[in-house]
Amino acid sequence: MINELTAKIKKTNAPIVVGLDPMLTYIPKHIQKNAFAKLGETLEGAAEAVWQYNKEIIDNVYDLIPAVKPQIAMYEQFGTQGLLAFQKTIDYCKAKGLIVIGDIKRGDIGSTSEAYAVGHLGKIQVASKRYAAFDEDFATVNPYLGSDGIQPFIKVCKEENKGLFILVKTSNPSSGEFQDQLVDGKPLYELVAEKVEQWGQQHMGDSYSYIGAVVGATYPEIGKVLRKIMPKSYILVPGYGAQGGKGEDLVHFFNQDGLGAVVNSSRGIIAAYQQETYAYFGEENFGDAARCAVLDMIADINSALQKK
Amino acid sequence: MINELTAKIKKTNAPIVVGLDPMLTYIPKHIQKNAFAKLGETLEGAAEAVWQYNKEIIDNVYDLIPAVKPQIAMYEQFGTQGLLAFQKTIDYCKAKGLIVIGDIKRGDIGSTSEAYAVGHLGKIQVASKRYAAFDEDFATVNPYLGSDGIQPFIKVCKEENKGLFILVKTSNPSSGEFQDQLVDGKPLYELVAEKVEQWGQQHMGDSYSYIGAVVGATYPEIGKVLRKIMPKSYILVPGYGAQGGKGEDLVHFFNQDGLGAVVNSSRGIIAAYQQETYAYFGEENFGDAARCAVLDMIADINSALQKK
Repeated sequence: MINELTAKIKKTNAPIVVGLDPMLTYIPKHIQKNAFAKLGETLEGAAEAVWQYNKEIIDNVYDLIPAVKPQIAMYEQFGTQGLLAFQKTIDYCKAKGLIVIGDIKRGDIGSTSEAYAVGHLGKIQVASKRYAAFDEDFATVNPYLGSDGIQPFIKVCKEENKGLFILVKTSNPSSGEFQDQLVDGKPLYELVAEKVEQWGQQHMGDSYSYIGAVVGATYPEIGKVLRKIMPKSYILVPGYGAQGGKGEDLVHFFNQDGLGAVVNSSRGIIAAYQQETYAYFGEENFGDAARCAVLDMIADINSALQKK
Repeated sequence: MINELTAKIKKTNAPIVVGLDPMLTYIPKHIQKNAFAKLGETLEGAAEAVWQYNKEIIDNVYDLIPAVKPQIAMYEQFGTQGLLAFQKTIDYCKAKGLIVIGDIKRGDIGSTSEAYAVGHLGKIQVASKRYAAFDEDFATVNPYLGSDGIQPFIKVCKEENKGLFILVKTSNPSSGEFQDQLVDGKPLYELVAEKVEQWGQQHMGDSYSYIGAVVGATYPEIGKVLRKIMPKSYILVPGYGAQGGKGEDLVHFFNQDGLGAVVNSSRGIIAAYQQETYAYFGEENFGDAARCAVLDMIADINSALQKK
């Protein structure tokens, strides 16, 4: 799957991923109206609105990008109905040829991490049958519990040819509270990055490892350091756009081969029509606005990379 | 809710919580057979088996205990069908008067943590209506992202009179890999514990805070230290029984008032019939075996507390 991600990035010339993180406040009124007319102002109606919104965005951008990253929390907030929309979104994206990174940030003790890994990346045995449940291609994972919380994910990834992005340095303002604490003079995130590098050696693709890292665009100098600690890991970079990261901040997340990073934008793409720049599209044409924002993002990043 | 937890612990004289972590390998054959006959060897069939199994265990133990702790991963492994069984289990436990601690170990950046908090503990606005989705009473949370990943959970807890258990020192063998790293001579878990104490001051009940901590029974000496750092926080203690923790290891997790800790056992209770000690019940009577194991666990812990 990491080889496939690399190939798709080369083919699209777009080292980006669109975050499918639908909030009801992003969803145009006409979509909400239709969904509520059909299913009522219910969790089911909200989930239908989410699904219709996602579908139109995907239809408008799928040919430009290698991958999407649905944030499961935005579906989980609607309970089981929302998770049905999450599943539908994954299935649709895969049918459109997109790689799906499940932004699930799970992590637990061994047997429990195994259950998460099986449910999201692997197959579960039910009597004589085996089923893939959510079936994402990659998942984000929280490392706070250490190696034996990560190994069950790696095991399933090896069996299924899938991959991980492990939280190393997150994009939020208070990420430093624990992640930046110095351990023998080195910040904790470097220790985690060293582990990611080691874990990655257990599951290598052609030129990159299946075990990637999450490092926020909002910390470009840290990105530069972490790039060197994990030369074979893809870095998934959230925080571009709405959170404040710009193209020029991102160049150090990439390797000399121009690969090794995928930059995520969520609100900046899916709710582009709500921004001044793209407001001229109008709410009805939110899909066209998203497409335009994707093209602008690709141009911004590639232009920064060319200047590097 | 923390006052309610304290009251229920006093009433039952049982500072314990039963972990509803159903693996198919724990579920008696007759239950699996019935579920698969009804719904096929499908994810739906597996979820039905999980639900029937949980129901019989709850029916057999609900009058003895204050709370249950369903581990969402064990449901998530079956995808959306499994999560429907998770929801059903929560609803049933609450109808039986049990407090429900959702062992979800979520944690993300601000707006995303808010979505998790809303989905699991709060209410989501859908047009003119508001709905509680999963509606647990407490949730476990991962602190790796720092304060702004935790505050949205606290905000929802304040609105809804609910609580958290934040991972401080987990029960698994490799928990020390990051959690024990020394920061200015102090292990990271102590830093996290100091934060839990601070966060707890924002949301106090009568004598304990709504913001508790998770500390593994497998590290009793660490429990002793953390008890002092967080005097007002309940400690949720996993790792009793199957993971190796014993009653005598647990006494230091409690305060002098005999309160301040709830000890979890999962497999040791719900799959008691598979242990030599309780095998005489037979597979058909797994509910009676679970009840007996609960009574033994309560006696073990209370006897250790009396010797303290």
